[in-house]
Amino acid sequence: MYPCKLLPSFDDAWCIGDVVVNIDGYSFKYSWLPWLSPYEYGWRAAVASMSDVLAKAAKPLAAVVSLGVRPDDSIHTVLRIVEGVRDSLNTHGAWLLGGDVNRSLEGWIDVATIAVKWAPKILPQTAKPGTLVYATSYRLWYAGLVLHSFYTGKWMEARKVFPKAFERFTRPILPMKFLELVRITPSCIVGASDVSDSLAYTLWNIARQNKLAIKLANVEAPPEVVDYSKRYGVEPLHLLLYGGEEYDIVFAVEKNCSREVEEIASELELEIILLGETVKERTGIYIGGSLVEPRGWRHFA
Amino acid sequence: MYPCKLLPSFDDAWCIGDVVVNIDGYSFKYSWLPWLSPYEYGWRAAVASMSDVLAKAAKPLAAVVSLGVRPDDSIHTVLRIVEGVRDSLNTHGAWLLGGDVNRSLEGWIDVATIAVKWAPKILPQTAKPGTLVYATSYRLWYAGLVLHSFYTGKWMEARKVFPKAFERFTRPILPMKFLELVRITPSCIVGASDVSDSLAYTLWNIARQNKLAIKLANVEAPPEVVDYSKRYGVEPLHLLLYGGEEYDIVFAVEKNCSREVEEIASELELEIILLGETVKERTGIYIGGSLVEPRGWRHFA
Repeated sequence: MYPCKLLPSFDDAWCIGDVVVNIDGYSFKYSWLPWLSPYEYGWRAAVASMSDVLAKAAKPLAAVVSLGVRPDDSIHTVLRIVEGVRDSLNTHGAWLLGGDVNRSLEGWIDVATIAVKWAPKILPQTAKPGTLVYATSYRLWYAGLVLHSFYTGKWMEARKVFPKAFERFTRPILPMKFLELVRITPSCIVGASDVSDSLAYTLWNIARQNKLAIKLANVEAPPEVVDYSKRYGVEPLHLLLYGGEEYDIVFAVEKNCSREVEEIASELELEIILLGETVKERTGIYIGGSLVEPRGWRHFA
Repeated sequence: MYPCKLLPSFDDAWCIGDVVVNIDGYSFKYSWLPWLSPYEYGWRAAVASMSDVLAKAAKPLAAVVSLGVRPDDSIHTVLRIVEGVRDSLNTHGAWLLGGDVNRSLEGWIDVATIAVKWAPKILPQTAKPGTLVYATSYRLWYAGLVLHSFYTGKWMEARKVFPKAFERFTRPILPMKFLELVRITPSCIVGASDVSDSLAYTLWNIARQNKLAIKLANVEAPPEVVDYSKRYGVEPLHLLLYGGEEYDIVFAVEKNCSREVEEIASELELEIILLGETVKERTGIYIGGSLVEPRGWRHFA
């Protein structure tokens, strides 16, 4: 068996035959946000890994986890992280097979997910000019809200006022019905990527790799996000573009398929929004005539 | 698909259907021996992960790697680690599919290997009373020699005098023909385990899990090891038992199969040695009447 040619090596998941694999890791020191319990931290690590295979239209079957454990971490902490990983996998229909535990100074977690091709094709991070760009929209904006409040030192306050945003951020559930959407409309969906660093980054990656521009449409923010943006003086659009760890999926759709894809998503009760469309004259992300910067909140930290 | 019941969760590799998976990780800080180049360090990390699936009689197909990179690590260092991982996989007939790179203080590496069942059965870490215990013997003793010289501060000297031991330790190649041995004689081989912490530990694990004793035979050390043991005043047997990172395989063989297994190993040019036999009256590892301690060199560090 040979690795699949269709997925370039700079992609976020890789295939060999019909098996799709991802590995995703984090240093505790650089990634453990202060309100996350060990259970939630483990939950999110598993979601981060599954998200990358889901964006390829592959179904997660099982995962393994490797932990670096700090001298001061209690057995209880370690068990709760592993339980978070396990429950997150089970919730998405996958199994925790086993793992490895290592001595560490800073703590780290790696989750490797094994998935199988679920639709007629494994989706590359491809788009082409003249397609529409959609996204699943469960955590878009909300993740930006949470990270903005964190980096501006307002998270304790914001957590009380915007519990829905924090809940969706803290214990994310992936839009698994995307698998069915691709299975039912495989010739309509050209490519996909998960949104894990920020929507701006994700779209820039797609634009650069495919040498095209994405013109963003006017999209409406949820009411809480509008409320938050007024309170803290930040544009809703910034919360959409410069978040991180959304674990939603951006996907390119053939123009003549838009109605079909929207109808089937609606039947599946999969929330999707139209973000914009691809054009070939330039490379980059545009709103009206202005270029969107390829950055995330992390870069303010 | 469900995880395989035959492999308990405390095992070192796990299966789902015919797919066998392992993940194995290390902190640079606690595992990077001073004479290992970045390339060799990466090579060994891949071998460590493949070794666990090989002991299940599964053939490594592909792997993914996750790296924690320290602020001072150069791009060159990171690339050389990845090249070591890649070349180690390729040498054993597997592919590096992709990976993840993370910011870290101490540095870490995790390799996750995906393998497929190769013989009629996936081997558990099982033994039963009245079987013979064999091992592949490419690095047994030599790894003990190298680690003894390291922990006693003599490795620079020993490296010059015993280059073969250091070579086998530093860039290990796995006994892949073990796959064929199990494929040809599946009903003869009851169970197996790789030797990655020390032979004493590995045998103790088998003894405890199966509630039996292993009586060790008199086995002959290679000439260099006899030479080393005289120079530095350490028993060859200690170098055999209390090494680590051997990546050889210990396996239990039905008594009536011993000639068949030895003959086929010889045809395959797979070096194996008879270590002893299992008995049911006690639990533990014995030489003559004395109990062998379940420890490794690491515990002197």
